[in-house]
Amino acid sequence: MIRIELQVDLRYEVDSHGADFIFNIHAAQTACQSVSQERVWLNQPVTPQIDTDPATGNRFMRLRAGPGELRVSYSALIDIAHHRADPARLPEVAVRLLPLEAFPYIYPSRYCESDRLGKFAITEFGGLWQGHGRVQAIRDWVNRRVSFRPNTSTSATSAIDTLIAQVGVCRDFSHLMIALCRALSIPARFTTGTDFGADPALGPPDFHAYVEAYLGDRWYLFDPSGTAIPMGLVRFGTGRDAADVAFATIFGGVKADPPVIRTLALEDLSQGIVLPHHCLDALSTDALSRSSTLPQRAQ
Amino acid sequence: MIRIELQVDLRYEVDSHGADFIFNIHAAQTACQSVSQERVWLNQPVTPQIDTDPATGNRFMRLRAGPGELRVSYSALIDIAHHRADPARLPEVAVRLLPLEAFPYIYPSRYCESDRLGKFAITEFGGLWQGHGRVQAIRDWVNRRVSFRPNTSTSATSAIDTLIAQVGVCRDFSHLMIALCRALSIPARFTTGTDFGADPALGPPDFHAYVEAYLGDRWYLFDPSGTAIPMGLVRFGTGRDAADVAFATIFGGVKADPPVIRTLALEDLSQGIVLPHHCLDALSTDALSRSSTLPQRAQ
Amino acid sequence: MIRIELQVDLRYEVDSHGADFIFNIHAAQTACQSVSQERVWLNQPVTPQIDTDPATGNRFMRLRAGPGELRVSYSALIDIAHHRADPARLPEVAVRLLPLEAFPYIYPSRYCESDRLGKFAITEFGGLWQGHGRVQAIRDWVNRRVSFRPNTSTSATSAIDTLIAQVGVCRDFSHLMIALCRALSIPARFTTGTDFGADPALGPPDFHAYVEAYLGDRWYLFDPSGTAIPMGLVRFGTGRDAADVAFATIFGGVKADPPVIRTLALEDLSQGIVLPHHCLDALSTDALSRSSTLPQRAQ
Amino acid sequence: MIRIELQVDLRYEVDSHGADFIFNIHAAQTACQSVSQERVWLNQPVTPQIDTDPATGNRFMRLRAGPGELRVSYSALIDIAHHRADPARLPEVAVRLLPLEAFPYIYPSRYCESDRLGKFAITEFGGLWQGHGRVQAIRDWVNRRVSFRPNTSTSATSAIDTLIAQVGVCRDFSHLMIALCRALSIPARFTTGTDFGADPALGPPDFHAYVEAYLGDRWYLFDPSGTAIPMGLVRFGTGRDAADVAFATIFGGVKADPPVIRTLALEDLSQGIVLPHHCLDALSTDALSRSSTLPQRAQ
Repeated sequence: MIRIELQVDLRYEVDSHGADFIFNIHAAQTACQSVSQERVWLNQPVTPQIDTDPATGNRFMRLRAGPGELRVSYSALIDIAHHRADPARLPEVAVRLLPLEAFPYIYPSRYCESDRLGKFAITEFGGLWQGHGRVQAIRDWVNRRVSFRPNTSTSATSAIDTLIAQVGVCRDFSHLMIALCRALSIPARFTTGTDFGADPALGPPDFHAYVEAYLGDRWYLFDPSGTAIPMGLVRFGTGRDAADVAFATIFGGVKADPPVIRTLALEDLSQGIVLPHHCLDALSTDALSRSSTLPQRAQ
Repeated sequence: MIRIELQVDLRYEVDSHGADFIFNIHAAQTACQSVSQERVWLNQPVTPQIDTDPATGNRFMRLRAGPGELRVSYSALIDIAHHRADPARLPEVAVRLLPLEAFPYIYPSRYCESDRLGKFAITEFGGLWQGHGRVQAIRDWVNRRVSFRPNTSTSATSAIDTLIAQVGVCRDFSHLMIALCRALSIPARFTTGTDFGADPALGPPDFHAYVEAYLGDRWYLFDPSGTAIPMGLVRFGTGRDAADVAFATIFGGVKADPPVIRTLALEDLSQGIVLPHHCLDALSTDALSRSSTLPQRAQ
Repeated sequence: MIRIELQVDLRYEVDSHGADFIFNIHAAQTACQSVSQERVWLNQPVTPQIDTDPATGNRFMRLRAGPGELRVSYSALIDIAHHRADPARLPEVAVRLLPLEAFPYIYPSRYCESDRLGKFAITEFGGLWQGHGRVQAIRDWVNRRVSFRPNTSTSATSAIDTLIAQVGVCRDFSHLMIALCRALSIPARFTTGTDFGADPALGPPDFHAYVEAYLGDRWYLFDPSGTAIPMGLVRFGTGRDAADVAFATIFGGVKADPPVIRTLALEDLSQGIVLPHHCLDALSTDALSRSSTLPQRAQ
Repeated sequence: MIRIELQVDLRYEVDSHGADFIFNIHAAQTACQSVSQERVWLNQPVTPQIDTDPATGNRFMRLRAGPGELRVSYSALIDIAHHRADPARLPEVAVRLLPLEAFPYIYPSRYCESDRLGKFAITEFGGLWQGHGRVQAIRDWVNRRVSFRPNTSTSATSAIDTLIAQVGVCRDFSHLMIALCRALSIPARFTTGTDFGADPALGPPDFHAYVEAYLGDRWYLFDPSGTAIPMGLVRFGTGRDAADVAFATIFGGVKADPPVIRTLALEDLSQGIVLPHHCLDALSTDALSRSSTLPQRAQ
């Protein structure tokens, strides 16, 4: 098991009209990820509304901030119990056999134009054995082709833009990997967390985006930018792409400071709690327990 | 109340490898739309799997067809009880007050790049009074700017493409209207049905795409292409855009005939069943009853 | 030497307003290509204006057609004296040493967005020896990646679209090859002619687009779609991309029949006239004699 | 007449491999613009090569710089004799009557996708009287719709991007105006100079991009960003769009300082030399004298 102490501190200057915020900085509570000692602190006297999306477990915190400084702090203790599997035994799943919950993730989305990449994906990956190994090959191809360089992409940059420009940040790597998977009818989705284990040379700790692909009977983790240790990835949001799970969506005139993030892994071998480390197993922290998402059958 | 007798006949030639199909041609069963006398007929001896998405009520029928001819017929009797409202009393809803179920429909999607249209939408519609009237103005603007012309767009055509080219089919009109609404933080979604009341000069009866915008406390109908009578629109699928609710998604080598569709409105004044007609009220056939979709509050 | 008997027959229906036409169906008269027995025939009593662009040798024929049928026939006898070179001895030329006439062809153009492909081109071709062999490798890569399929692209399809879709016609192959060359600072341009030697399975004889790259001291031919025999290519127009050298640009309401084209190669060994054949030499039919295009030096 | 004292100072850090530069900072010598007291100074002991494009009069200075600092200074005294005309008497010219030199400027180019804007341009401007007034209306529409804001566009931003985003710098305003003109078959081209008269609030003096449209018998000036006084615009380069006439195109690893530019207008009423001022006349400083560019007629 992995235990993470998480602290997120955000700071904004809100203009004289006030502003609405939607945050997705709560760690998701899922079958594999339990969250305790959770605390939200706001410097303004507002009561946020926190809603949980039943389909994904995403928690959205909404609030209206008044003019001036807004500070938001979130802290929690997060236990992650990974499901591990032998990659060699994880097959791709034919579309006709997928659980219904995986459907949204085979279709193209704003930043993942998989509908245009069918022939490209077949050219590059069509000859490979299907299964986890093929998804890993896509992840490695993206990691090798794209260079990680801050400030080279914008909020409009899509997977095809990144395929052409070959440069971007974790979000862009993830969009490209997702688009290529979906182009091969492999469900793939966008997950957010923090970049545990990232090289300090890339900058201070930050939010992170990575990928889950549906293989066998659940979603498995992939980190196409290769900047984090996958075992240390917590889950904030699960979505089709970055449009769904921005850590903050802002409606109004606001200046933001860079987020300040601390992700500390704890170790307690007596409880079976180990430090995140690179491993060869396929790892899953599926958002929902399978039982609650079985497709309903009806005619 | 509206009563529709619906018949959909599809025909495909499947190549020697067989093919997987996902159909979304079942009328949705919702609080406002009740479906009876439903019948699916297939010429091949396959048992389809039919699943209902709990979030939208979409019913997806999956099957694997063998080589040769595949014929699919669907028929049903559909009663639609519209919620009607005075357009002048329908306000836009601030993002912080939206039900969580509306969230996916404020974000950009594959064919509705609302993130790039913020300033454009403000230029054209920022000065209007907020509310149903503004959404109607967007609908009218799209209807006026875009010309309806078959075979002028492709499966890759997006709202921005249509804004530039000013030509398309019902799907393109809908994508552009949705993108402009979302650019103003008005939730908007893509709904599919059949084009009841369409001018025969536009071609034989066909599937149709139209728009719902969230106003007041529910979703209201808009038909930006103006080709159908909104009161006669049945609901098959509800999604972010055409990527979510294609009437048929096909995996394999298949040739398709044009669909053959019959949408017949029945009249029985003794039961309060009238023929669809244009009216000035705002109309809603919200996919789900409100009670089942209230956001869950948790911290 | 190659001798080609060329015949082009075009037919249009012009609506009641009449229409303006710009044709580029005259074979260019250049140092390597001499044109004789030239004849233009029009069924309408109009006098076309024919102008020659001094920079490229392109001949544009303009006319205003009245309502009704317009038929245009062009025939000519064309002798092509190729300059041949050993590909192994043709270097790329540093930008600072290029003749000024090559400058327009290192910059991006409408259908060749070389400015966006720098990193992509380096990834694929940066490790190769510079020279004719590298350009040939680009030509072969494009030929291998892209499938030739009629009616898969439109007049808006660009090199990046083709790189993604991997399907197109001769024009699309040419745009992609040109964009990749320019991305490596190799001047490349778009040339039009007819598809001598094309497989009849691809359709009736047609106009053709191919590529010239500047190597050593002149422009050399490449046929990225691989559908024609390069030695049989006549030159109509020379431009940055298809925008410059459409065989017909039409202003008005016009319906066009497919062009009817006949390209017949003659043989007369006594005069050294041979039939076009595939060969290993690099071939050039530079538009202009070098002397007339030497850059003017001034300060 | 206008007399401008121009001084351009550029500074670069070249990496250890050296770098090639193409500058277009020489004022063009044209029938309307005479250049004297010209001086180029380089801190490195290199001899630049300066070539003049016969079709446009653009002067390109090429050089290879060694590692370390490169400083380039250019100064000149420039006399501009404007051709003035009554805007009300300047008609648009039918394509069949245009001089051949105007042809390249009716076709789409890298940053001006006029081929996609035909219907859009007709919707906005199709109902206006043709002539200078319509081009002025396009200029005013662009000026009104687009906001001037530095650092909102990139080297890949095109006219359609600007039409959607409605924000940019002088280059973007010019591309959009050009694309809309060409969409209506009005030849339009991209001209570079300096932003004489610009509001210091927009930043220090800078290079500038503006537009020429072909009306009557020559090219007339328009300044769609509205940041400069048109009468004070000198001409460096004339091209289809920014791809053709960058003030510096660099091949190699180079860091650039912002350019330092001084454009000083002199006044000497005894010689008829006045200060640039806004006026109601249409102004032309056509690149070439008409006689040298008359189309050659041939068959």
